[in-house]
Amino acid sequence: MLLTPPLPRNESGIETAIGVLKQRFGERLSTGAAIRQQHGHTTTWIENQPPDAVIFADSTEDVAEIVRVAAAHKVPLIPFGTGTSLEGHVNAPAGGLSVDVTHMDKVLAVHAEDLDVVIQPGITRMALNEHLRDTGLFFPIDPGADASLGGMAATRASGTNAVRYGTMRDNVLSLEAVLPSGEVIRTGRRARKSSAGYDLTRLMIGSEGTLGIITELTLKLHGIPEAMSSARCAFPSIEAACNAVIMTIQMGIPVARIELLDAYCVEAINAYSKLDLPANPLLLLEFHGSTGSVAEQAQAFGEIAEDSGGFGFEWTDRPEDRTRLWQARHDAYWALCASRPGMDAIATDVCVPISNLAEAVTRSKAKSDELGLLSPIVGHVGDGNFHNTIFLDNSNADDRARCDTFISWLSDLALELDGTITGEHGVGQGKMSSLVKEVGAGAEVMAAIKQAIDPDNIMNPGKIVDI
Amino acid sequence: MLLTPPLPRNESGIETAIGVLKQRFGERLSTGAAIRQQHGHTTTWIENQPPDAVIFADSTEDVAEIVRVAAAHKVPLIPFGTGTSLEGHVNAPAGGLSVDVTHMDKVLAVHAEDLDVVIQPGITRMALNEHLRDTGLFFPIDPGADASLGGMAATRASGTNAVRYGTMRDNVLSLEAVLPSGEVIRTGRRARKSSAGYDLTRLMIGSEGTLGIITELTLKLHGIPEAMSSARCAFPSIEAACNAVIMTIQMGIPVARIELLDAYCVEAINAYSKLDLPANPLLLLEFHGSTGSVAEQAQAFGEIAEDSGGFGFEWTDRPEDRTRLWQARHDAYWALCASRPGMDAIATDVCVPISNLAEAVTRSKAKSDELGLLSPIVGHVGDGNFHNTIFLDNSNADDRARCDTFISWLSDLALELDGTITGEHGVGQGKMSSLVKEVGAGAEVMAAIKQAIDPDNIMNPGKIVDI
Repeated sequence: MLLTPPLPRNESGIETAIGVLKQRFGERLSTGAAIRQQHGHTTTWIENQPPDAVIFADSTEDVAEIVRVAAAHKVPLIPFGTGTSLEGHVNAPAGGLSVDVTHMDKVLAVHAEDLDVVIQPGITRMALNEHLRDTGLFFPIDPGADASLGGMAATRASGTNAVRYGTMRDNVLSLEAVLPSGEVIRTGRRARKSSAGYDLTRLMIGSEGTLGIITELTLKLHGIPEAMSSARCAFPSIEAACNAVIMTIQMGIPVARIELLDAYCVEAINAYSKLDLPANPLLLLEFHGSTGSVAEQAQAFGEIAEDSGGFGFEWTDRPEDRTRLWQARHDAYWALCASRPGMDAIATDVCVPISNLAEAVTRSKAKSDELGLLSPIVGHVGDGNFHNTIFLDNSNADDRARCDTFISWLSDLALELDGTITGEHGVGQGKMSSLVKEVGAGAEVMAAIKQAIDPDNIMNPGKIVDI
Repeated sequence: MLLTPPLPRNESGIETAIGVLKQRFGERLSTGAAIRQQHGHTTTWIENQPPDAVIFADSTEDVAEIVRVAAAHKVPLIPFGTGTSLEGHVNAPAGGLSVDVTHMDKVLAVHAEDLDVVIQPGITRMALNEHLRDTGLFFPIDPGADASLGGMAATRASGTNAVRYGTMRDNVLSLEAVLPSGEVIRTGRRARKSSAGYDLTRLMIGSEGTLGIITELTLKLHGIPEAMSSARCAFPSIEAACNAVIMTIQMGIPVARIELLDAYCVEAINAYSKLDLPANPLLLLEFHGSTGSVAEQAQAFGEIAEDSGGFGFEWTDRPEDRTRLWQARHDAYWALCASRPGMDAIATDVCVPISNLAEAVTRSKAKSDELGLLSPIVGHVGDGNFHNTIFLDNSNADDRARCDTFISWLSDLALELDGTITGEHGVGQGKMSSLVKEVGAGAEVMAAIKQAIDPDNIMNPGKIVDI
C-alpha cells in the first residue's frame, strides 16, 4: 500500500497521444518535470507517480477531445482539480495524462429562486461561496482544503457541516461528464428529486475519476441562516464527549457542526492559535436557524453537556468569536504539524455508527500507543467520522511500516464496529485492499461496472478497483 | 406505452424452473390464475401481464435459491412487495416468476442510539412506524400507498415529507441484495456516510428490481419532533400559491410538508371528507420542531402567504385537527374518484424546479383542457413534484389515447422546464421512451450497467431500459 506498484505502461500509445494533443493544445500541454511532479504529488504519503504530461482543459469540448484521443490510443487519463486528495487519487501508476480542469472555474448560472447553481468543476468551494455572497445563499460542504467542486464530487467529500447539510452525495442535483468513449452525458436536470432510472449522478459521485471526467455540476444551495451561534464545551473523557454527541443527535437538535478534538489537539491549537481552551477533550458546535431557535439549540445542548459531565460550556453569536473558534478548528492540521516540528503528518479517516464512536476512538488510541505512534484525533463526530493524524518520519521505513499497520488495523476496526473504511477521503490507491474487506462481492460488482463503462481502463487506472 | 408489447418467452426454461422450484417451495409456489393475475395487476393503467408463477420467499436464502434456479434456466424474476407501484413495475412481459417478499417483514434490529433500523424488505411503512412507536423515532417517507420498504427503495419513492426528510435515496444507509448470479451482496454498513467506492446502495435504489432483489435494508430514522403543527392557506391562483412556496423554501423555513391542491381537489375533498375548505388553490403545511420553532415557522409562513395574496390562513397544533387535515390529504385520490363515479383515474408524476412550477401546472391544465381531459392536480410542491390525476374510461380506446398523449406531453414539458419525467413513481414500463429523452446517452450507460450485472436479462426484464 505504501509503495503502490506501477502498472504496465503503453509507451507507444502515450507518446502518440501526447504528439496528437500537443498539436491541438500547444502551450496548454506540458511535459515539464516540475509540473508533472506537482500533478502527482498531493496531500498524501503515497509515493509520487507523475503523469507523462499535463493538459489544461478550458471546456467540456476540450475534455471530450482529450478523451477521444486518449481512448483511440488507450492512454490513461487522470482528472486533476486542486490536488488536495489524500489517498493517491491523482497518481499515474500507468503513466498517461493529467487533465487539469482548474481553468474550468466558471459559475454558469445561479438560480437563486430554486436554490441551485450550475458550475464548472474547477471552481473551489471558497471561490463559489465568494461568488454567492450577495445572494443570501451558500454551499455548505467544506473539506479541510479549499478543494475544487469537481474533485469534491469525485471523492464524495464532506466536512464539518455534513451532520446537518449532508455530503456531496446529497448536494449534487445532476452533473455532466465525459465518458471513456468521449461521449458527453448529463445525468439529470434541475429537479430536486427524480426516479428516472439508475442514479447515474450518485454513480459518478465517489467514482474518483475512474468512470469519466466531470465537466459540469448542478449543486443544491442553502439559505444563509438568519442566526448562527457557536459553542464549546470540555469533557472529562472522550466517552463523555461522545455520549453528549449521541444525546444531541438523538434529541433531534439540528446542529450544523459538532466537532471533537482530543486533549492533544486542544493543546496544539492553544499554542498555535493563541487560545486558552481547557486541555481536555472538547466539542465545538455551531447552530443555524432563527435567532430564537439558535438560542434554544444552544441551551438544549448546554443541558445535555452538563448531564454528560461537560464543563466550561460557552456559547456566542458574536461573529468575530465564531470566526476565531472555527479558524482554529480549520487550522488544527497546521497546529498539529507545529506541535512536532520536522515530523510528517498523515491524516487518515474512518467512520462508525455514533454509538461505537467512543470505543473506536479509545481503541485507536491504545493501538497507536502499542505501535509507538502518536496519532491525535479530530472528528466530525455527529456523523461518527474521525481522523487520526499520525506523526512519522516519511523517510523512515520503520515509521512507515508501523503507520501502514495502524491504518490497515484502523480500517478493520471500523468494519468490526459496523462502520466504513473511509467516511470522506475515498479509496484511491491507499485503501483498495480494505475496500474488498468492506464490500466483499460488491467489489466484483464495482469491477463489472468499471469494465462495462471503461473497458480499456483508461480512466484513472489503479484506483478503487482493478479490472 | 399503453399496450406494452410482450417480450419473447423462454417456455422450456420457465417450465423447468417452476418444476425445480415447486419441489423446494411446495405450497409456497402457486400457479393459480387469480394469484398470478393479482401479482401482475397493480395500481396502474398498463395492461396486466401476469407471471407464470408466484413464489413466497421467507428468507434471503430462499431468494438466493430462487435466483440461482432462475439464472440456470434464464427465467425472468419480478420482485413483488405490495403491488402498489404505478408504472407497470410488477408486470411480466416475458413471463417468469413473481418473487413475493411480503412474508419477509421482520424488523431485524432497532439501533435507537444510532437512529437506524435494519429490516426485511416486505415490511410496510406503516407497520414499521407502528413497530417504532415506543422508541420516539419514526421513518418519514410516505408514498400514497402503505407500500413495502423494499418496493419503496426499488422505486426511489418519496411522498409528502420529502421536502424536509429527503427521499428513499437519502434514507437508506445500506442494503443487502441478491444479484442475478445468485450472489448476495451487502452494499455497506451502518455508518452515516461513506466514501468507500462506487455507491452501490444508490445504484440499487431506483433500479426497480432490474439489477437484483433487495433482501434487507438499513434505514435512517428520525426523532419524533417535540412539536408539530399544521396550517392551511387558500390562494387566488396556482401562481400565487407557487410564489408562496418559493418564498418559503428560499427563506429556509424548514417545513416538513407543503402540499398543493387545486380548486377541483379542494371541492372533491370537501365533499368526501366533510370539510369546509375554501374552493380555491390551497396549501397544506406541517411544521416540525420545538414548540417555539414550530410557532415561529407558522408565523413566518403566515406572513409570506399574506404577501402572496393568501387568505383564510389557519394553523393548529391540536393533534385531532392535524390528523383530520392530513387524512383528508391522503384520501385525495379517493375523493377524486368519488367526484366522478364510474370513471377510472390515473395518477401521473413529473417534477420541475420550483420556479417553473406555476408554469408547469398552468400549462398542464391548458393541455388537459385542449385534449378534453379533466386532470386535477395535487403536489408535493416544496420539491416541485406534482401529480395530475386523469379521469378516463379505461375501456375506451380514444380516452386512453388522449390520456397517453397527455402523459407523454407532460414528460416533455417537464424536460423543457429543466425537470424530470418522474419525481417519485419511477420508469417501469410506462416511461421507458421518455427516459431516453431525459438522459440521452445516459440511457446507454444504464443499458451497459444492466448488461454487465444481468447479462441474461432475468431481473424484471422490460423495465427502465432494454438490453
